[in-house]
Amino acid sequence: MMDTGFLKQVQSAFAGVQEAQIAALQTFDDEVKLTRDAWDRSAGGGGDTRILTEGRVIEKGGLNFSAVEGDVNAALAEQLGTAAKRFAATGVSSVLHPCNPHVPIIHMNVRYFTLDDGTWWFGGGIDLTPHYVIPAEAKAFHGDLKAVCDRHSVADYPTFKRWADRYFYSPHRGESRGVGGIFFDHMGRDGAADRSDALAFCVDLASQYASIYQRRAAPFVQQFVSADDAAWQGLRRGRYVEFNLVHDRGTRFGLVSGGRTESILMSLPSRADWTYNHQPQPGSPQAETLEWLRKGTEGVDWMSQ
Amino acid sequence: MMDTGFLKQVQSAFAGVQEAQIAALQTFDDEVKLTRDAWDRSAGGGGDTRILTEGRVIEKGGLNFSAVEGDVNAALAEQLGTAAKRFAATGVSSVLHPCNPHVPIIHMNVRYFTLDDGTWWFGGGIDLTPHYVIPAEAKAFHGDLKAVCDRHSVADYPTFKRWADRYFYSPHRGESRGVGGIFFDHMGRDGAADRSDALAFCVDLASQYASIYQRRAAPFVQQFVSADDAAWQGLRRGRYVEFNLVHDRGTRFGLVSGGRTESILMSLPSRADWTYNHQPQPGSPQAETLEWLRKGTEGVDWMSQ
Repeated sequence: MMDTGFLKQVQSAFAGVQEAQIAALQTFDDEVKLTRDAWDRSAGGGGDTRILTEGRVIEKGGLNFSAVEGDVNAALAEQLGTAAKRFAATGVSSVLHPCNPHVPIIHMNVRYFTLDDGTWWFGGGIDLTPHYVIPAEAKAFHGDLKAVCDRHSVADYPTFKRWADRYFYSPHRGESRGVGGIFFDHMGRDGAADRSDALAFCVDLASQYASIYQRRAAPFVQQFVSADDAAWQGLRRGRYVEFNLVHDRGTRFGLVSGGRTESILMSLPSRADWTYNHQPQPGSPQAETLEWLRKGTEGVDWMSQ
Repeated sequence: MMDTGFLKQVQSAFAGVQEAQIAALQTFDDEVKLTRDAWDRSAGGGGDTRILTEGRVIEKGGLNFSAVEGDVNAALAEQLGTAAKRFAATGVSSVLHPCNPHVPIIHMNVRYFTLDDGTWWFGGGIDLTPHYVIPAEAKAFHGDLKAVCDRHSVADYPTFKRWADRYFYSPHRGESRGVGGIFFDHMGRDGAADRSDALAFCVDLASQYASIYQRRAAPFVQQFVSADDAAWQGLRRGRYVEFNLVHDRGTRFGLVSGGRTESILMSLPSRADWTYNHQPQPGSPQAETLEWLRKGTEGVDWMSQ
């Protein structure tokens, strides 16, 4: 049996997070245009996609809430390793692509999944993709995430940090997507976490999203952008597109399982560039960034930098 | 046993095709810049990637020759359904992204694959992706492909046309990539084709590439480009990127199996755009193009248009 009472509680909490974070992002970027697109899913449930465009800080981004349900089809059964027949899922997800290449790209997702055999779990994370890696900024970002984890017994920063490093690694480029962050999945599926504690952690994490981003973004919003900076931003966005379309399990699962394409691909930038075999000047900030991103699947221990 | 004598014959023929097609493209686009990047593959073999950029017609494109060999790893064994231990593959592949949105994108590939159990096969095709679909142009393009097929007993245009329609369909968008063309694979694997005949067909097809493209491109090279045209080109290029990274079996297999990333991703445009849930004006040329592309997995019978 699915506990629909708790499911509704999670949906309501996540919908509240979406409202609060949209409001916070609009305060931070008071020029950003907000478009709302509420949608139904023919197989059950629906969502509410908020698109942010043409802001002072944010060039293109979104903050999506969804609450869907349906039959467990063959692909889902295989991916989840379950014989259950019905599922329900709810989540909030966001990607923000900034105008200024000195401001990083950020991604957040929290989600809850439950089956009619009574199993349930939470997953999610926040990760940062600077166009230019600045170790002190990466350290401060990870400090913020560690502080959230440290408030919750269900969350272990070192474990979730490693998980993000491995998840956001792009094998075909031999590069990390960015400076990582935290990632977790199947929280509670093994019975080791209380569901209210897990929900409290997810809500706390997602509720920090706009303020975590503002701290990393605000100092760089006005920074001078050279032609080299703009070109580099286009190429790094190209890598972001590659990671999401080639490797990201959430994106790929959504696209092949009949998810809502526009809501899934709100994660893509307004524009991305590719140049054959681009090699930055040795010693340039671009080359330094690539060095940071090419540390391997375990990433960098930013907190010790 | 692998027939290395025939393999060398195919490699030599394909390398010759590359030279001839580069020369023909340079004659057509006398301003295009050519860069040559010869590369070795640590696991065996190598290739010769020619990149075309900043031309009068071609904004970014490539024409790649490769001749690789190696052990059949687990992923390859599963994909090929073989117990063979060694493989060799050689091919020529190309994508051309034009400057002018009234000129179509084109793609060509011919390839030969052989295993140490003595099996071999050819595959390949040519397909066209106009930013604006013009039925008479699609018909003429298919006419050129049918004419090549009709010269070779191993090639059946109706079969290969259907194969392309199904292959170049993007399920997550419910759209065909373009107006199709021809696609074939495993030619000769079932023993039904003579290998010299199959090679002759592949060489003939690839040898028509530049002239087939020139006929579709030349009339539109000077056409006026409005801001709407340029915006539409960016969005259609976004769809091209999506198809290649999400669905294209050759691209995905190459990226996950340790192929040479830069040579595989030479197929991406210099720049691509995404706009959330973009809907063209009803009745506009953009809307008409989408109608043509949304005919389903069987595409359109252009020859009867």
